[in-house]
Order: sequence, then structure tokens, then C-alpha cells
Amino acid sequence: MTRAQLIETIRRKQSMLCVGLDTESHLVPEHFQKERHPVRAFNEAIVAVTHHVTVAYKLNLAFYEALGDQGWLDLEATVAYIRAKCDCLIIADAKRGDIGNTARKYAEAFFDVLDVDAVTLSPYMGRDSIMPFVGNKGKWAIVLGVTSNPGAEDVQFLSVDGRPLYETVMKRCAEWGSAQDLMFVVGATRPQLLAEARAMLPDHFFLVPGVGAQGGDLNAVLDAGMNADGGLLINSSRNILYAGKGEDAIPAARRAAQELQGTMAQAMAQRSVLR
Amino acid sequence: MTRAQLIETIRRKQSMLCVGLDTESHLVPEHFQKERHPVRAFNEAIVAVTHHVTVAYKLNLAFYEALGDQGWLDLEATVAYIRAKCDCLIIADAKRGDIGNTARKYAEAFFDVLDVDAVTLSPYMGRDSIMPFVGNKGKWAIVLGVTSNPGAEDVQFLSVDGRPLYETVMKRCAEWGSAQDLMFVVGATRPQLLAEARAMLPDHFFLVPGVGAQGGDLNAVLDAGMNADGGLLINSSRNILYAGKGEDAIPAARRAAQELQGTMAQAMAQRSVLR
Repeated sequence: MTRAQLIETIRRKQSMLCVGLDTESHLVPEHFQKERHPVRAFNEAIVAVTHHVTVAYKLNLAFYEALGDQGWLDLEATVAYIRAKCDCLIIADAKRGDIGNTARKYAEAFFDVLDVDAVTLSPYMGRDSIMPFVGNKGKWAIVLGVTSNPGAEDVQFLSVDGRPLYETVMKRCAEWGSAQDLMFVVGATRPQLLAEARAMLPDHFFLVPGVGAQGGDLNAVLDAGMNADGGLLINSSRNILYAGKGEDAIPAARRAAQELQGTMAQAMAQRSVLR
Repeated sequence: MTRAQLIETIRRKQSMLCVGLDTESHLVPEHFQKERHPVRAFNEAIVAVTHHVTVAYKLNLAFYEALGDQGWLDLEATVAYIRAKCDCLIIADAKRGDIGNTARKYAEAFFDVLDVDAVTLSPYMGRDSIMPFVGNKGKWAIVLGVTSNPGAEDVQFLSVDGRPLYETVMKRCAEWGSAQDLMFVVGATRPQLLAEARAMLPDHFFLVPGVGAQGGDLNAVLDAGMNADGGLLINSSRNILYAGKGEDAIPAARRAAQELQGTMAQAMAQRSVLR
């Protein structure tokens, strides 16, 4: 999915919602447990009731790898289902990062074999770990900038030339790709940092996790991070997947997604973004 | 495998060799291509002729993920084969790194489901991305310190308090685990850096990639990095896997591994390490 297609999807749906499919097999409601493949049946039900208000799906690899080769099959099946069902951006949340020849293999694994549109990457190993993921039409590198977890302080906030490290990292990474093929992960829990990142990189899309379960406030994120193209993919995982229990899980997921989209549409209207 | 067991294995085999199973399906020799599972048949043949001189096997996840769910099956089968065949440390070279709840899932995926002994990790997200991998008896976190690729300069060498960033990263990570459950990746291509890392962390094991194909010199690595426990796992991948062509591939792999081990044994003898 190209940048132009992504922006058009945001405009059409009046949404920047990314639904995180961090599906834990033991949290899948009971009526899915009798299915042959409970995780993928649950994922498909979630996608079916959320895709009208969603622009991206993010699959957290850890939750699939924890199920071994069956998990990898669930992952492949879910990607194929999303691809057939809707025109959403599909993100493998994999946080990969390795030397050039290995990075090229990962790009092949995710873009060609798994057929996702975007992969999250860690910048610690530098340019040859990122470059294989940019320059592929319609495909995206999403590089960790500043994250929303407690440990973010340990490395990302080390002082480099009097400023936090992540600023230098984001500026350097922005030189290796463009706003057409590279996004950044910017956590939701500190809107001030999001505003600073937006000032530093006005055009790039930011993938923003941490709204909801991790404590980030949606309106604060929208205020701090939106630009004229929307410019944000705001992820919600647990607050949608586990919004309700038992038979209400899927209807509750639909309501939770619609509520988030409603707030986004309102913020876009107030600022005349993509009207 | 505990630290005491690892040191005993190094003593017994007079070796610090780690064989990297970065197996590319199109490079598997022709006589394996008629097997039902060429990659795992090739891996098993490599393990069978190298394990007497090897203390660790490192499986690079990218090469398996690029084969989709079949690759994950190859990975599982190879781990099971190594586990049954010998008492070597099994490393998943995965470079993972994510927030706490996801890191716990990765630890489950690698330690419990895949049943490896160690996982390589990226430190960019800080302590909650590392902690789930330490404190599990016989299991290891192997954190990126300073790497051997060109892009290492981009982030790892940024100046923090007048010293390269990776030094602060390694010191901090060393506080989250101990020399019993945490190692570091230290590249082979700059032996001076390896010597400095050894001075900074005298007791920790270092996983050293980059000997051979990436240009690192084995004797320089041994001089710079060995300690009284050996203290190194020196990885060779392509120089062993692809040492010979066709029918000679497996005999050539054996010779290449034995030659590396011979150099290691000589260095250990010269310094009376684990005699």
C-alpha cells in the first residue's frame, strides 16, 4: 500500500485506527475454542467487525511464535484473510534488526513470503539493518523511535549532544528512506514527545502504540501528532480484542473500534484534516 | 545449559566454536535437494560432522522465516536434532526486543516452545525487553553490544559522555542479568573494541560473529577476548556451511570446523586456559 493509497483510506474511513492482533490463545473466547483453529477464527471475526473503521492491522509476531509452527500458520492465514477482506495496511510487528544479508532475508520473509506491507524494525544495528526494507514500492519500514514502555529511558533517552538519543536516531533513519516508505514508532504515553517528534519530522507517518492498555490518551495523541495527511496510525490491541467476554467479545470489539474511530473522525473534522 | 556446563564443554572439547546454521535453501547441495526436507537434512549432516569440535549452534531466524511455516518446521526439527545428538548450547539468533508483555511471550516462544538455550536480543527498548530472558536456570539472554556490520557506526558509536554509546548499553545490561545468564554480542572485525569490552566486563561470555566471511581474524579475536573460562563463543556460518561444493560440502564443513577448533585449542594451550 503506497502512501497515497494509505492517505486515501484514512480520508475515506475518517480513521487512523490500527487494530493490534496480539491474540493470546488462552484469551480467545470459549465459543471459538471448538473451532479447528481458534486463534485464526477469532482474528477473522475481529477483522470482519472492525475493518470498516480500521486502516491498518498489526500482528505481533511474539504471540504467533509462542504457538510454534501452528502459530506461523495462524499468522499466514490471518494475513491472507485481511488481504482478501479489505484494503488495510498489514503490519508485522516484529522489531527485527540485523546485518545486511540477514536483513535482506527478513525483508524477503515478510514482504514476499508472508506478504505484509510493513515491518517494525529496531535501529540499533544501523543503516544496513534498515535499507533492505525501504525502496520497495508499497512496502514500509517502521523504525522504533521513542517507545512507550518503562525501559525506553534506559537507551533511548541517553544524552547525545545534549538531546535524547532517539532524536538523532530518528533523524538518521529519516535519511535512509523517505516519508513514502519509512515510518516511526512513537509511543503514546508522553504526548509532549510526540509533539516534538512531529515538529522534527512533519511529513512522516508515526505508528503510535500505547493508547488504552498502556495508559496513553487518544485526544492528547491526536492533538500532538496529527498532520494534514492524518500522519498517524494509532494502535489499539487489548482494548479491542478483549473489550467484552464470551459471546459479547465480537460485538464489544466492534463497539470499541467504532468508538475510537468516532473520536478520530471528530478530531479530523475539527482540524479539517482530509475532508 | 548453565555457565558451569558451558565452561566444562569448552574445556572438554578445547573449543569455543559456534556453528551458525544460516542455511539458505538454494545453497543446499544438490544431493540434499531430493530429500523431503532439504534444509533440515543438510543441517543434520552439518551437525553430525561438526558437533565433536563445536560448543554451540546458532540458528539465524531470518533464513527459516523466509521459508514460511515450512521454515519454522525446519527450525523445530533442527533444534530437536541438535538436542538429541549432543550437549551443545543452542542459540536462536533472533535479535528480538519488545515491551515487557511481548518480551515475555518471546521468552516463552524460544525457551519453552522452541526449546533453545539462548536468544539474541536488541537493547534499544531497555530493561523490560531484556528481563524476561534472564533468571531462567540454564537459559541465556545474548544482548547486542557492538556489532561487526558497517551500520554499527550509526547508533552504537554515538557519543554518550565522551564514550561510544555501546559501552553504556553494555554496562546497563550487565546490571539486569549476571555473567550466569547474560552474554553480549561483540563483533570480530575490530579486535581493539573486543579487548576494551573484555577489560570492561571481565567475566561475561561474548558471542563473536564476523570471523571469516565478514573479515574478522580468529587469532586476533582470541588474543583480544579470551578469559580464564574461555569467555568466547566464536561463530562461523558461511565458512563452514559452504566450505565445499556438491558431494564435498559435508567433508569440507568437517575440515573447516576442525581447523577453527585447532586454532582455538592452540590458543587455549598457549595461555593455559581450561587445561
